[in-house]
This record gives sequence, structure tokens and C-alpha cells, in this order.
Amino acid sequence: MLQLYIGNKNYSSWSMRPWVLLRQAGIAFNEVFVRFDSFDASSEFKRALGPVSPTGKVPVLVDGDLIVWDTLAIAEYVAETWADKQLWPAAPQTRARARSVCAEMHSGFTALRSHCPMNIEADLAHAGALIWRDQPGVRADVQRLVQMWSALLQEHGGPMLFGEFSIADAYFAPVCMRLHSYALPLPAHIAAYVQRVRELPGVKAWIDEALAEQDFLDFEEPYRLQPTQG
Amino acid sequence: MLQLYIGNKNYSSWSMRPWVLLRQAGIAFNEVFVRFDSFDASSEFKRALGPVSPTGKVPVLVDGDLIVWDTLAIAEYVAETWADKQLWPAAPQTRARARSVCAEMHSGFTALRSHCPMNIEADLAHAGALIWRDQPGVRADVQRLVQMWSALLQEHGGPMLFGEFSIADAYFAPVCMRLHSYALPLPAHIAAYVQRVRELPGVKAWIDEALAEQDFLDFEEPYRLQPTQG
Repeated sequence: MLQLYIGNKNYSSWSMRPWVLLRQAGIAFNEVFVRFDSFDASSEFKRALGPVSPTGKVPVLVDGDLIVWDTLAIAEYVAETWADKQLWPAAPQTRARARSVCAEMHSGFTALRSHCPMNIEADLAHAGALIWRDQPGVRADVQRLVQMWSALLQEHGGPMLFGEFSIADAYFAPVCMRLHSYALPLPAHIAAYVQRVRELPGVKAWIDEALAEQDFLDFEEPYRLQPTQG
Repeated sequence: MLQLYIGNKNYSSWSMRPWVLLRQAGIAFNEVFVRFDSFDASSEFKRALGPVSPTGKVPVLVDGDLIVWDTLAIAEYVAETWADKQLWPAAPQTRARARSVCAEMHSGFTALRSHCPMNIEADLAHAGALIWRDQPGVRADVQRLVQMWSALLQEHGGPMLFGEFSIADAYFAPVCMRLHSYALPLPAHIAAYVQRVRELPGVKAWIDEALAEQDFLDFEEPYRLQPTQG
């Protein structure tokens, strides 16, 4: 059976994407949890991943002898291997657009990613308000998301970005977590999309397990241990 | 006909990938050059790209009504549309591995990318020696490249990473440019791969046009205008 190596559910945004994809698609897999302790070369995390991951990062998908690393390559492998699940949009032009938004996410949105690390359990609304006030890069990233999602939801009629659930929604699921935790301001139709993503069974299962985890790591908590009064 | 929007050939590592891919594959396209002036919202660069690129970045591929942005999505679109060119390896498991190394490149190697920006025309050997001495992140990135390429060249027998030319070689072509310009130390078999990439007709054509460009931009030249004596 497939094995998916993941990090802490509360924090590991990259792990969340293929996990949600497989769950939503109804593809059976074993989860191999590799707890974040630190990212030093000598950490338990790096030692546990060493035998399977050439980059020392999660997620990694293992299918028999095959090791697939990096989220986008995992998504392509799953889409190709379970072609009947139609995890990319069927029309070539729409598929090209779905791949464009995923690739943009893969290498972009760096301000949002660095200032608002995923932290599903925490209520970071106050930190979010300060970040929103002080970080034009975060505002620009959210503006781009709103523009992108608005166009896709309008064009395909929802409820997901390309109509039915696709890899693109799995790709943006961790972004929806951030927008929610940090309570960043959103137009109503975008907030409604974020809520629909949170209610997808595969996403809800991840959130529930993240909340149950209760494994708080200082190096993943830039805001909770600091005074947040402005 | 396909239109590929690109930035300056001397500097634009992301533009180089799909350009080399299309040239090597023998797929006809029109190049639309958008000169880097600055990356401010009011720049000529941003204004020229506005109508075609939702991210305001190069490269962008336009095929009739379809706009495909972000290098990896362009590569997938080209591979799918010209399936006869076999731009990904044919075996599913090998293809998954090729996608893994490209996705790793897409979001990784940040130390090499930030400290050694592509600059094909320049001889930056002295700057490279200082970077190599002072930047452990660059040494780690090069170590990972050597490990990855060594394994692939051994497994597939060369001359390219997966035997014949594939998207993976186009993806790493700008990295080969950096390794050469900064004269970073490499084992002989890796230096030989770098040289083979430089001699691919599609890569050689890009290099020749980059050398002819002679359009030097201060903000792309962190080393040439500074004293490089250690």
C-alpha cells in the first residue's frame, strides 16, 4: 500500500496537500508520521527521513520501490496513476490553468508563507491584524489570491476552484487554514470558499487530527509566545 | 503560433527553461522579449506583461486563447500537447522521479539562487570563490546537486540526466550556467555534465543570444560593481 510520510498536522502545510488529495480522492494509504523536533542534520526528524527522502523534507510518497518527493510531483503521480479519479480538470486548457495556479503556489506567496506560518489550532487573529497592517507583501499575496479565486469560481461556477474538487483545491487548502487562523480580511465570496474547503471531508479530517495533536513546538510558534498587543 | 514571453537572456533563469525546452524539442514559437527595467508596479516590464501575465512575471506561454504561466505548468503543457516528443521519460516511475527533481528545483536551492544569480556573460569566478568560502547554504545546495545528478547519470547512463534530453535537463540548464559563471568546484563527471548541457543546441543558442544582448542592469549585478578582492 502507498505510504505517505508527513510532519506535524498542526504545522506542516506541505504535508497537508497530498494527504488531503489522497483522502478526498478515496485512495487508501498508510500515514507515516515523522514528528518535527528540529531541522538540524542530527535531528530525529532528519534521521527518520534519511532512508526515504533525498531532500530530508516531508512529504514523501512511497509506492513499492518508488519514492516520489516534493508535493507537486506527488500530485502528478497520483493524478496519473489514478486517472479515473480525474484529479486534474479533464479539458487540456483548463488543466493547464490548474497547473499554472498550483505551480504559482509552489514557488510563490512567500510573504504570506513566511509571516503567517500554518498553525491550525491557534487563534492568531490579533497577530493577523498586526501582520495585515505592517506587511504589504502579505496584503499583495492575499490580493492575488482573491483575484485568482474570484476569476476561477466565477468561470467554473464553484463550489471548488475548477468546479468539482481538484488538485488545485488541495494545493490551496493550507492557505485557507492560514487565512482562517490569522483572520485576514476577505470578501464574502472568498471567505465562503475558504469555509467550503474547511468542510471538505478530507480537509475536516486533517483539521480534527491537527487539533487532537497538541504537540506545540516553539520554533513553529513565532506569535503565541510573544506579546501580541500592538 | 505559440508565443513565449521572456525576460533578458543574460539574467532570466526562469525564462531560459521553457525557451530551451521548446528549442531542443524543435517546437516552433515566437519569442516576445520583455526587457527588465525594474520590477516596480509602474515599470515598463510590468506594464508590458500586465495584459498576459496574472502574476506579472516571465515566462508566460500564450497558445491562442490559452495563457499558461509558471515554468513547471508550461513544461507540463508542452509535454502533454507534443506527447510525441517524449519530453518526460516514458516509464511512469522514471517520470515520477523526473517530476520530483524538477519540483525540488522549482521551490528549492534558494541559497544557490539568491547568492549566485544567473549572469551568463560575466566571469564571476572570484565572487564565486568568496561565496563558496562564506555560504554554507550554497555548498549544501551544490552538494545536493552533485548527489542527485551523480545518481541519475549513473542509473540512466547519460549523457543527460534521464538518458536522452528531457524537461529535467531544461530545468537544470540555468543551474549549469551559474555553476559555470561562478566557477564553483565540481567533481569531474559533474563538470562534464554541465559542459554537455552547455553544448546542447538549444542551450548554446540561448547562451549566444545572452552574450550578444549586452544590456547590463545594476540590480541584476550584485558582484560586478563591487570590489571582489577578499
